[in-house]
Amino acid sequence: MKGKRSSKKRLRILVIHGPNLTLLGQREPEVYGRTTLEEMNAELERLAESLGVDLEIHARNSEGEIVSLIGDALGLCDGLLINPAAYTHTSVAIRDAIAGTGLPAVEVHLSNIAARESFRQHSLTAAVAVGQISGFGSASYRLGLQALVEYLQSCQD
Amino acid sequence: MKGKRSSKKRLRILVIHGPNLTLLGQREPEVYGRTTLEEMNAELERLAESLGVDLEIHARNSEGEIVSLIGDALGLCDGLLINPAAYTHTSVAIRDAIAGTGLPAVEVHLSNIAARESFRQHSLTAAVAVGQISGFGSASYRLGLQALVEYLQSCQD
Amino acid sequence: MKGKRSSKKRLRILVIHGPNLTLLGQREPEVYGRTTLEEMNAELERLAESLGVDLEIHARNSEGEIVSLIGDALGLCDGLLINPAAYTHTSVAIRDAIAGTGLPAVEVHLSNIAARESFRQHSLTAAVAVGQISGFGSASYRLGLQALVEYLQSCQD
Amino acid sequence: MKGKRSSKKRLRILVIHGPNLTLLGQREPEVYGRTTLEEMNAELERLAESLGVDLEIHARNSEGEIVSLIGDALGLCDGLLINPAAYTHTSVAIRDAIAGTGLPAVEVHLSNIAARESFRQHSLTAAVAVGQISGFGSASYRLGLQALVEYLQSCQD
Amino acid sequence: MKGKRSSKKRLRILVIHGPNLTLLGQREPEVYGRTTLEEMNAELERLAESLGVDLEIHARNSEGEIVSLIGDALGLCDGLLINPAAYTHTSVAIRDAIAGTGLPAVEVHLSNIAARESFRQHSLTAAVAVGQISGFGSASYRLGLQALVEYLQSCQD
Amino acid sequence: MKGKRSSKKRLRILVIHGPNLTLLGQREPEVYGRTTLEEMNAELERLAESLGVDLEIHARNSEGEIVSLIGDALGLCDGLLINPAAYTHTSVAIRDAIAGTGLPAVEVHLSNIAARESFRQHSLTAAVAVGQISGFGSASYRLGLQALVEYLQSCQD
Amino acid sequence: MKGKRSSKKRLRILVIHGPNLTLLGQREPEVYGRTTLEEMNAELERLAESLGVDLEIHARNSEGEIVSLIGDALGLCDGLLINPAAYTHTSVAIRDAIAGTGLPAVEVHLSNIAARESFRQHSLTAAVAVGQISGFGSASYRLGLQALVEYLQSCQD
Amino acid sequence: MKGKRSSKKRLRILVIHGPNLTLLGQREPEVYGRTTLEEMNAELERLAESLGVDLEIHARNSEGEIVSLIGDALGLCDGLLINPAAYTHTSVAIRDAIAGTGLPAVEVHLSNIAARESFRQHSLTAAVAVGQISGFGSASYRLGLQALVEYLQSCQD
Amino acid sequence: MKGKRSSKKRLRILVIHGPNLTLLGQREPEVYGRTTLEEMNAELERLAESLGVDLEIHARNSEGEIVSLIGDALGLCDGLLINPAAYTHTSVAIRDAIAGTGLPAVEVHLSNIAARESFRQHSLTAAVAVGQISGFGSASYRLGLQALVEYLQSCQD
Amino acid sequence: MKGKRSSKKRLRILVIHGPNLTLLGQREPEVYGRTTLEEMNAELERLAESLGVDLEIHARNSEGEIVSLIGDALGLCDGLLINPAAYTHTSVAIRDAIAGTGLPAVEVHLSNIAARESFRQHSLTAAVAVGQISGFGSASYRLGLQALVEYLQSCQD
Amino acid sequence: MKGKRSSKKRLRILVIHGPNLTLLGQREPEVYGRTTLEEMNAELERLAESLGVDLEIHARNSEGEIVSLIGDALGLCDGLLINPAAYTHTSVAIRDAIAGTGLPAVEVHLSNIAARESFRQHSLTAAVAVGQISGFGSASYRLGLQALVEYLQSCQD
Amino acid sequence: MKGKRSSKKRLRILVIHGPNLTLLGQREPEVYGRTTLEEMNAELERLAESLGVDLEIHARNSEGEIVSLIGDALGLCDGLLINPAAYTHTSVAIRDAIAGTGLPAVEVHLSNIAARESFRQHSLTAAVAVGQISGFGSASYRLGLQALVEYLQSCQD
Repeated sequence: MKGKRSSKKRLRILVIHGPNLTLLGQREPEVYGRTTLEEMNAELERLAESLGVDLEIHARNSEGEIVSLIGDALGLCDGLLINPAAYTHTSVAIRDAIAGTGLPAVEVHLSNIAARESFRQHSLTAAVAVGQISGFGSASYRLGLQALVEYLQSCQD
Repeated sequence: MKGKRSSKKRLRILVIHGPNLTLLGQREPEVYGRTTLEEMNAELERLAESLGVDLEIHARNSEGEIVSLIGDALGLCDGLLINPAAYTHTSVAIRDAIAGTGLPAVEVHLSNIAARESFRQHSLTAAVAVGQISGFGSASYRLGLQALVEYLQSCQD
Repeated sequence: MKGKRSSKKRLRILVIHGPNLTLLGQREPEVYGRTTLEEMNAELERLAESLGVDLEIHARNSEGEIVSLIGDALGLCDGLLINPAAYTHTSVAIRDAIAGTGLPAVEVHLSNIAARESFRQHSLTAAVAVGQISGFGSASYRLGLQALVEYLQSCQD
Repeated sequence: MKGKRSSKKRLRILVIHGPNLTLLGQREPEVYGRTTLEEMNAELERLAESLGVDLEIHARNSEGEIVSLIGDALGLCDGLLINPAAYTHTSVAIRDAIAGTGLPAVEVHLSNIAARESFRQHSLTAAVAVGQISGFGSASYRLGLQALVEYLQSCQD
Repeated sequence: MKGKRSSKKRLRILVIHGPNLTLLGQREPEVYGRTTLEEMNAELERLAESLGVDLEIHARNSEGEIVSLIGDALGLCDGLLINPAAYTHTSVAIRDAIAGTGLPAVEVHLSNIAARESFRQHSLTAAVAVGQISGFGSASYRLGLQALVEYLQSCQD
Repeated sequence: MKGKRSSKKRLRILVIHGPNLTLLGQREPEVYGRTTLEEMNAELERLAESLGVDLEIHARNSEGEIVSLIGDALGLCDGLLINPAAYTHTSVAIRDAIAGTGLPAVEVHLSNIAARESFRQHSLTAAVAVGQISGFGSASYRLGLQALVEYLQSCQD
Repeated sequence: MKGKRSSKKRLRILVIHGPNLTLLGQREPEVYGRTTLEEMNAELERLAESLGVDLEIHARNSEGEIVSLIGDALGLCDGLLINPAAYTHTSVAIRDAIAGTGLPAVEVHLSNIAARESFRQHSLTAAVAVGQISGFGSASYRLGLQALVEYLQSCQD
Repeated sequence: MKGKRSSKKRLRILVIHGPNLTLLGQREPEVYGRTTLEEMNAELERLAESLGVDLEIHARNSEGEIVSLIGDALGLCDGLLINPAAYTHTSVAIRDAIAGTGLPAVEVHLSNIAARESFRQHSLTAAVAVGQISGFGSASYRLGLQALVEYLQSCQD
Repeated sequence: MKGKRSSKKRLRILVIHGPNLTLLGQREPEVYGRTTLEEMNAELERLAESLGVDLEIHARNSEGEIVSLIGDALGLCDGLLINPAAYTHTSVAIRDAIAGTGLPAVEVHLSNIAARESFRQHSLTAAVAVGQISGFGSASYRLGLQALVEYLQSCQD
Repeated sequence: MKGKRSSKKRLRILVIHGPNLTLLGQREPEVYGRTTLEEMNAELERLAESLGVDLEIHARNSEGEIVSLIGDALGLCDGLLINPAAYTHTSVAIRDAIAGTGLPAVEVHLSNIAARESFRQHSLTAAVAVGQISGFGSASYRLGLQALVEYLQSCQD
Repeated sequence: MKGKRSSKKRLRILVIHGPNLTLLGQREPEVYGRTTLEEMNAELERLAESLGVDLEIHARNSEGEIVSLIGDALGLCDGLLINPAAYTHTSVAIRDAIAGTGLPAVEVHLSNIAARESFRQHSLTAAVAVGQISGFGSASYRLGLQALVEYLQSCQD
Repeated sequence: MKGKRSSKKRLRILVIHGPNLTLLGQREPEVYGRTTLEEMNAELERLAESLGVDLEIHARNSEGEIVSLIGDALGLCDGLLINPAAYTHTSVAIRDAIAGTGLPAVEVHLSNIAARESFRQHSLTAAVAVGQISGFGSASYRLGLQALVEYLQSCQD
C-alpha cells in the first residue's frame, strides 16, 4: 500500500531536521560534533545520488510546520527520514502526522539518546517509524537513508 | 462576564481544528471515517445557519497559531468549539489561552479517546472547558456546537 | 451485529441513572443544577417521542442491580444511555456488563468530570462506550440520546 | 443549612454498620474483639439515651443500600455515624451520598486502620466527614456518637 | 480450626459465580467459550457427585449479596469455590468476608487474567484464598473443586 | 506489659502539643478555631480531674525535644496523648520513640487531616498508636484523653 | 497449529522445575511442605501413566538452561508444565522462549504467590501461558498436568 | 566562552515573553495583576537604560519561533531574559536552544509557580538557566534583568 | 491584613539562615562561593540601611528553633527573608509556621536548586511564600530583600 | 584507551546473539522474519570480509555465559556487536561487563523495540553502548557492524 | 584534602548516636539487643585505645544539634562514625552537613535496615558517606570504627 | 537451627564473588581499585587463618551457578560471605537460595552502592542476609568475614 507511486520511478525522500539543528557545528560540539548542517546535507545528497534517489530537505524549529511538511508530502514523497530532535519526546502531533500519512519513516539521532537525561529516553515517534538509529553523529543520517531506501525498494518488489 | 457582547445579537463562534485534521478522509479512515474536513465544515455551517449563529472556522497545525487565534478572539467571539487533537494531551499553552481569555469552550473529539493509547486518555484542556464530547465522528462537532449555543444562550438570559 | 433486532422497528433505549441521582435538585445545586430527576426524565421522554424511539428508564444506587439491568436488556433493547455516576471510576463489573452484552452505550455526566477531583478523571466504562458527553447539566442526557439514536440508525442502514 | 430540622427538637442520628459487621464477635476476634453487633448496638442505645438523642441503626453489606439509606435520611435525620468498613477504601458512591445530602457525618473504625495493609490506609469517605475516630474497638462508636452530638449541638446554638 | 464441622460428614461446598456470569455462552464467546452457566453447573454437580460432596451454587451480580452469602455460610459450609469476576480487582468487602469467616476458598477464572488488561492483573481476593486457578475455561471450575475437596480432606485427617 | 506501673495507682498521662500549636487562637482561626492553647489545656485538666488521672502537658516546636520527652517518660507515665502536628507526616524519630518506649499513645488532630493537602493525609506515627481521632477541634483532645484512659484501665484489669 | 505433531500419537510433556526446587522438603517446609522433588516427580509419573502421556522432567537453577530446554523441545514435545519459581518475576527470556516456540504452557506454583511479597505478585511468564495454578503444594503440579493434557486433547479434536 | 562579544562593549539582552503574555492586564488579573505587557516593557527599558544595557524584546506564542529567536541571537546577544510561560513545563526544544547556544539565561515568572497546579511545578528549562525568579509580578522581570546583567558583568572581569 | 503594624513606621524584616549556612565560605565553595555568612550579612545590612528597613538576622541548624523564631515574630516583624536550606524539602513545620503567622515571606537559595539532585527540586515552603529566588549566590539574598521590601511597601499604600 | 591493540592491525569484532536467537526463522516469523541465524551470520561474515575485519560470533541463552564472553574478550577483541535480546531489559550484569571491559559496543535489535510491550522499551545496556540500531531485521546487524567499524577506525586515527 | 590535619598525629573520631539510642537495652530488645549505650560506648573506647585513636562521643535526639556537632567538628576531627537512626531516612540537613564539612563518614546501623519497613530502606545520608555497615548489633559500630580508621590511615600515606 | 553442624568444630565459610569480579584490578580501577581478585582472596585466606576458620571461595558469572553453589552448601558450610554484584539488584533466585538453605549470610560490596545509579540502590538479597557492608573496597570483604565469624560464634554459645 505504502510507496504506491508508480514503482520503478526514482524514489523521493523527505528529509526533516527538527528544532535547533541549524545550530549544528556551533552547539555543544563535544556532544554533536563539528560538522555543520550544510556539510551534513551535502553528504546526504552525495549518498542519495549514488543510491539513485531524490531528496527534499527541510530544517524547521516549529512543531506545527513539521506536521504540515509531513501532511503535504502525502502522494509526493515515498519515505521520510526524520530527526525530530527535542520533539521526539513531546510531540503527539508529529506522531499522528506520520501515522496519518502512512509515510514509511526512519527516525535518526546524532547522539545516543539512551545515554542522556531520562526525559530523552522515551520516544513518542519511534513507535510509528520503521526503525530508529542513534548515536553515530552524522553517520546516523547516512545509515538511516540507506536503511530507508533498502526498505522502500523491498516494498517495490 | 462571559458572553458579555450585547445580548440578543447573533452569537459568533470560533471553531478550531487542531493538527493533522486536514488529513481527514485520507488518514486512517477505519478510525476517523471518510468525511473530509470540507464536508464536515459545510455540515457545521448548515447547522449554524439553522441555529442562527455565525461561525469562524480555522484549521491549524501549529500550537502557537492556535494560541494566537484564541487570544485574538477576545471580545470578537462568544464561544469556542475546539478539537485540539494531539495538543489535547500536551499543550499547557492552549489551556492557558482558553483560561486566559475566559472564552466558554466545548472540546470535541472524533474518536473515543478513552478507548485509545494511554497517553491519549488525559486531557489538559478539558478542565478549563465547559464540557467535552467524544467518540461520535463528525457528529461530535455538531453535538458540540448545539451544546455550546445552548450554553451561551442560557448565559444571556 | 449490534442493533440486530429487526431493523426499521422502533428503537428501544435503556436509560440508567447511577447512584445518588435521585437526590438531583436537592443535592449540591451549585454543581448539579436545580432540575429534579423527574423533570429530566420528562424532558428525555419528550425528546424520545420526537425522535420516534422508546425509553426504559431506571435509577439505581446498587452496582449489582445496574449490572443486572444491562444483562437483562440483551435482546430487548437496542442501546444504552448511562450515567454511571460514582461507579464510572470504580466499577469493572459495569464495564464488563456493557462489553459482555455488546449493547452500544453512550456515557453521560452532568458535571465536567475533567475539572473535578483527580479520582473522578478516569473512567473505567468510557473505553467500552461509543462515546462520552460531560459537562452540560441535563443537556448532557439529551445530547447523548440524540447521539445514540443517530449512531443506532447509521448501523441499521 | 446543616441540621436545619427545627432546633431544640430531639436529635435523630442515623447509624450505619458497613459490610461484614454482622460477623462481629465471630470474625477474627484477635482483631475485632468478642463483642457482638447486638451488644455494641445496645451500648450505643444506652449512651444515646443518656445524651437525649434518638438512633436509627442499620447494618448493610451492600454499597447501594448504604447509599440509599443515606439518601433517604435527608430531612429525617440530623447526623450520620458510619463505619463504612471495606467500603471506606473503595466507595466513591458513599462519599457522594454523604456530600450530596450534606448530613454531618462521623466516620468510625474498630481497628486502627493506619496499622494495617496499605490499601486500608486511605479513606475516600473521611474527606467529606466532620472527623474520624479509629482503633478503640467498640469505644470508637461511643466516642464517635459523643463527638457527633456535641458537633450538632454546637451548630444549633 | 478450618473445616471444623464434624469430620467424616459429607463436605458441603458453597459455589459463587460473580457478576455477569449469567451471560456465559452469550457474552464474548471468543473469550469465554460457548458453554452456558447451566451446563457448567451441571458438570460441576456431576463432579461433586463423584467426589462425594454437596454443592450449593449461586450466581450474583451484587457485591453486597456475595458478602452476605459468604457470611451466612459460616458453620454451614466447609469451603468456598468462587469466581469473583470483576470484583476480583475491586472488592475489599469480599476479601474481608472470606478472611472474616475463615472459609477455605479457591479462586477460579475462566480466562487467563494475566494476559488481559493491566487492571485485571491484580487480585484483591487471592491473598486470602488457599490458591488460584485461571485460564482453562469451565475446566478452571472443575480443577478448583477438585483442589478444594483435596485440601479440605487433608485438613480432616 | 504496657502500663505496668503498679496498677490501681492514679494514672499519669503525658500530653504533647507539636509544632506551631502555641499559635492557637491566633493562627488561621477559620481552620483551627479561636480557643487558645491555655484554654484547651485548662479544659483538659478539668476532664483529667473528673477522670481521676494526672496530666503532664508540654508544647514543643522541636522534633528532637519531643523525642526526648517521650524517652524520658519511660517508667514515669502510663500513656501518651499527642498531637504531632506537622511532624505527623515527616517524623520517623517520633514514631521510633513511641514504639521504643512502648507507651500506649493516642494521636489527635484539631482539623480533619483527610480533607486537607495530600501530603497531610499519611501519618507516620498513627501506625504505632492505639488509635487516632481527628477533626473535632479541641474536642479531639478531650475524646482522645477519654479513649486513652479507658484503654489503660482495660489493661489494668 | 499448536500440538501439530501427528495427532492420536501419545502426547509428550516437558516438565521444568525452576531454581531452588531441588531444595524441596529441606527448604522452608512450613511454606513448601515436606514432599521432596523425587517424591513429587514420582507422583507426576503415576498420573501421566494413568492419563496415557509421556513426561520428560528437568530441574534447573539456570535461566539460560531453561531457555535452552524449551527451545530444544520444539517439534519434540507437545506441551510444557513449568514452575519458573523465582524466574516467574524476572525472566523476559523464558517468556520469549515460550512465545517463540509456541509450546502450550501451564504455569504452576507450590505456594499461593498472591499472598507473599509484592515482588512475587506479578508474573512475566503467565501472560504467554494457557493458564496458571498456584497455592496447592504438589497438587498444583498434578492439577496442572491434568489441565494441560485436557487442553492438548481438545486441540487434537 | 559565554559573553565573548568584545568586553566593555554595551551588553545586549534578548528578552522573550512566551505564550499568552500579550493577554497581560486582561487575563486573570487576580493572578497576573493589571499591568499590560507594554507597560512592563517600558519599565524594563527604563531599567535597562539606567544599567547601561540594550534590550531586544519579543513576545511569541509559538514554541518554534522562540527556538528560532534564541538560535538567531547567537553572537548578537550576550544574555537571555525569558518567561517561557506554559512552555516552561513542556518544551524540550527551548531547553535545547538555550543549552545549544550557550546564552546565559535567567528564567522569570510573574506568579509563584510553586503554589499553582502540580503540572506547573516542574520546569524543564530551569536546569539550563543560570537562575530562576518567580512570584513578584512584573518585578520578577526587573529583578531578573538586574541579576542577569550582574552575572554577565562578573563574567567580563 | 498582613503588615498591619502601623504603616509608615520603619519596616522590620526577620532574616533566617537555615541549617549548615554557618559553613558558608568553607563548604563546597565551587557550589556556594567563597563569601562567608558574616560578609553576606554585612552586605545585607548595608542594603537594608539604604532601603531604610531594619533587619533581625538569625542562623539556625534546628527546624524547631526556626519554627519558634517565626512564631515569636508575630506582631514584631513585617516580613520574612528565609533560606530554609535543607529544610526546604522536608519541613511541613516551617511551612505551617509561615502560613500560621501570615508573615509575608520570600524564599531564597544560593544555588539553582532546579539543577541539583531530584530531591532538592521540590520546595514545601515556596507554596506559602510570596516568591522564590535561586541561583545567584549571595545576590539571591539581596534581590530577595529588595523584592520583599518592595512587596511590603506596596501593601502599605 | 579503547581499541588500544596495535593500530593498523586488522580489527577483531566480538558478535553476541542473546537468548532465543537460535530459534530465528522458526520463531514468530511475522515479527522476526524467515532468515535463520546461520544465514544471518553468513551475511555478516561477507560484510566483515569486505570491510577487512575479523568476526568471532557466539549465540548464548545464558546471561552468565554472555558476561564471561565479554570479560574474556578483553585485550583480544576491539569491539562488540551485541543483540542482548531479552536481557536488554533485565541484565545489570551484561551492562557491567560492557562498562567494565570498556569494549566499544553497538547494540542491535531485529524488531523495533520502541513499538513493543512497555517492558521492552527500556534498555539497561544501551546507556553503556556507543549507539543502538533497531527495527531493520537482519539489516540491523549489518548497519551495526558498519557503524562499529567506522567508529573504531575513527578512534585509530 | 580530607583528613588534612597534620598527618601522623593521633586521629580524632567524632561518634554520633542519633535519636532514641539512649533507650538502648530498654527499647525493643528483640530488635536492638540488651546492651546499653554506656556499655557499647565502653566497648568502642577500648577498641579506639587499641587502634590508637581518640573518640568524642555524643548522643542527640535533635536533627539540628547533630548538624551543629558535625559543623563544629570541622578542623577538629578527622572522621565521623554516625548512626543517624531515624534521621537516616528523612534528613537532608545531616547529609548536607557531612558533604559540607567534607568529613569522611561511616554510617552504621544496629539492625539490618534492608529487612524492615519500606520507608527504612532508603538512606539519604549513605550517598555522602565512605561506606555503610548494618545488621550486626553493637558489632556494627566496632566494624565501622575499624573501617573508618583504616580508611583515614590509607589517606595519610 | 542455623550453624547446627557440630559446634566447636572449625567453621567453614562459603565465599561467593558474583559476576564481573574476575575483571577486578583491570575494570574501572577508579571505582574498584587496583587489587586483583587473587590478591583479595589471598588477603581473605590470611584473615581466615588468623580467625581459625576454613574458606571455600568461588567466582561465578552465572546466576544459576551461584544458586547451585548455595544449595549444595547446605549441611557442608556454616555461613556465606557473598558479593552478588549486579545480581544484588535483579536476582530473586539468589535471594530464595539464601532463604531456602537458611545459611547465615553477609552481603558485601566494594563500592558504596548508595552513591551510584538509582537502579543499584535497592538490594533484593540484603533482606535475607544478617547484615550488609559496602564502600570499603577489599576491606568490605575482610570486615564482612570478621562480622560473619563473630555472628556464627555467638550462635554456637
